[in-house]
Amino acid sequence: MIVMRSVSIIGVGTTNFGILEGMTIKKLASSACNRAILDAKLDRGNIQAFFLGNYIGGILEGQETLAPIVACEIGLQKNVACTKVEGACCSAGIALRQGYLLIASGVYDFVLVGGVEKMSGASTAKNTEALAAGMDKDMEGYTGLTFPGYFGLVANRHMYEYGTTIEQIGMVSVKNRKNAVKNPRARFRKEVTLEEVLHSRLVTDPLKLFDCCPIADGAAAAVLCPTEMARSFSDKPIEILGSGHGLGHSTSYAMEGPSCTATVFAAKEAFQMAKIQPSDVDVAEIHDCFTIAEIVDSEDIGFFERGKGGPAVEEGLTQVNGRIPINTSGGLLSKGHPVGATGLGQVYEIVRQLRGEHENQVQNAEIGLAMNLGASGLVSTVTILRGVH
Amino acid sequence: MIVMRSVSIIGVGTTNFGILEGMTIKKLASSACNRAILDAKLDRGNIQAFFLGNYIGGILEGQETLAPIVACEIGLQKNVACTKVEGACCSAGIALRQGYLLIASGVYDFVLVGGVEKMSGASTAKNTEALAAGMDKDMEGYTGLTFPGYFGLVANRHMYEYGTTIEQIGMVSVKNRKNAVKNPRARFRKEVTLEEVLHSRLVTDPLKLFDCCPIADGAAAAVLCPTEMARSFSDKPIEILGSGHGLGHSTSYAMEGPSCTATVFAAKEAFQMAKIQPSDVDVAEIHDCFTIAEIVDSEDIGFFERGKGGPAVEEGLTQVNGRIPINTSGGLLSKGHPVGATGLGQVYEIVRQLRGEHENQVQNAEIGLAMNLGASGLVSTVTILRGVH
Repeated sequence: MIVMRSVSIIGVGTTNFGILEGMTIKKLASSACNRAILDAKLDRGNIQAFFLGNYIGGILEGQETLAPIVACEIGLQKNVACTKVEGACCSAGIALRQGYLLIASGVYDFVLVGGVEKMSGASTAKNTEALAAGMDKDMEGYTGLTFPGYFGLVANRHMYEYGTTIEQIGMVSVKNRKNAVKNPRARFRKEVTLEEVLHSRLVTDPLKLFDCCPIADGAAAAVLCPTEMARSFSDKPIEILGSGHGLGHSTSYAMEGPSCTATVFAAKEAFQMAKIQPSDVDVAEIHDCFTIAEIVDSEDIGFFERGKGGPAVEEGLTQVNGRIPINTSGGLLSKGHPVGATGLGQVYEIVRQLRGEHENQVQNAEIGLAMNLGASGLVSTVTILRGVH
Repeated sequence: MIVMRSVSIIGVGTTNFGILEGMTIKKLASSACNRAILDAKLDRGNIQAFFLGNYIGGILEGQETLAPIVACEIGLQKNVACTKVEGACCSAGIALRQGYLLIASGVYDFVLVGGVEKMSGASTAKNTEALAAGMDKDMEGYTGLTFPGYFGLVANRHMYEYGTTIEQIGMVSVKNRKNAVKNPRARFRKEVTLEEVLHSRLVTDPLKLFDCCPIADGAAAAVLCPTEMARSFSDKPIEILGSGHGLGHSTSYAMEGPSCTATVFAAKEAFQMAKIQPSDVDVAEIHDCFTIAEIVDSEDIGFFERGKGGPAVEEGLTQVNGRIPINTSGGLLSKGHPVGATGLGQVYEIVRQLRGEHENQVQNAEIGLAMNLGASGLVSTVTILRGVH
């Protein structure tokens, strides 16, 4: 792969994540996109392509073809190529990557990328069924396995292989809920204690209710352009240093232990492109759809050695003032997980960190990382960002 | 937009289009992809990215995240970026375009693109509802308007504006069904007379049953690489001369007469890139989801002046031996319309024409065009191909 020019984020926008009554999926996406365009101070007539990530808008809302519908709503030009991209929880991460690659390679100068999900109109049962659309229906999906079940299996295996404790896993929830208290974009802003996590209702052994992220409505967006043009639009453009997109396994029986191959490959690609090491990252938003996922992610990315992700949480290394602050936003566990929006929701948080504007600001944060994991470890996206001070 | 190097199709594959019992959506896509890879004589370990078009697999089959699931099934490498793209009937056309742009700009060398839909497992009512997911739910979708209704409106307006006759519209069906007799990939291979079309059951005035394409299961795929490498894999590589992707209107009330703005823009982009005129095209597969659509498309692309599309059909200009042979495959009206697969199904037919291997071979066909229209004229893709003789 050859990448020819540097790309930067010149604007970001997001809705709050939560139960947003009266907001349709189109309105959510349009709102975030309009905010990103406003933040970029860009005349929208300059936008040449639009990629919108969405996962289950078809199943839950009966709405597909969202990219051109939103484009009409926000008034993009008729020569703008509008594409919905889908890769489960990586949908928005993929949207960002498409925009990045097509600017880096010189095809476009200005690309709008977004992500959206509307979930609160459906019951918990319907949401669980819809979310399971990322399972291979010919294989594990056929058995009725859903994602809470899958991550329960991963947690048990991680505990078996490495001696990770249920307390270490629960501490991810305690940390992230604490971070969310200051974040107005989060659905849950109330702290929980380890005791509360451990004694909350069992969902799928060993995961309890507070080990699981809540659903949410939400959207997030960003405007990208070549770095050489970025200063004309933003005082604090954020450079995209690297982008990775990996493939994993479509069934858990194919996995080699409690690790997601897709993340390993996506991280490797992103770090090679960025020419940095995991230890160079100052702040990260990584996929904590379940507490155990954050621990596995942190090992797959290379922040910690295999099996050391649990102790790292216990030792406070991932707290806001720790060695590698993870999910200073509160993560999916607190913000909620509007699936198709989550990837750019993370990027929104990282951009605020690298601009020095975050509610839980990491001092002197220069390099940030956002990472999503989709389906049964089937797909992963990693984006590495750098603030310019 | 700058495009740096020429891209060619070195392999194509398709399933038959029809009621394919026992074939899941994953198996359909995998089958077409495997055939395309085999046709390209490419070691699949070389594939660097995979774009898969699909429209309503979530709603009808409860299956999303199809790109990485199919990638696992066909054994792609773990560093392969796998993305589902969606743009209603343009889904596969968009998949092709993503692959094209990323090779043309130097990001990748080998990209697999595919499209798939599985429709026969659902009732007609469920299919109609699912297909309407491309309607803007906040606007016309809310009124209950579906695509047969939308194209009935377009037909009435075209007749009102230009004096197009119901006989001219019906002749599109007669022509396409005749072309399909020799095409083993088509769902319907029996001729119909104009009398049969005109007296078939009314669907949405003035469109009758034989004015409407049938649903189908099906998948199609292609392998792309830089033209400079293409001869190592194929004796008859097919060069992609141009690619357009346009945006239209999300509601019919915004339309300016019976024309689809998205197609006008997509065609303009593709022809500019290809540096040719519509009159240079030797054979075309264009979106005949309804008979009237083919007439409107033929005017929007520029094959005929506005209002002359109806008379052109009557004069035989679009027959296999006519001035611009359209839908020599039988089109969607005969092949069936597995929505997410259709765009690459068309490309499969054009590639056979440009290789000189088609069942309804157009003599000396060198330049071919494939064109899709999605939703209420909301999105369009145009691809221009050239055979090397």
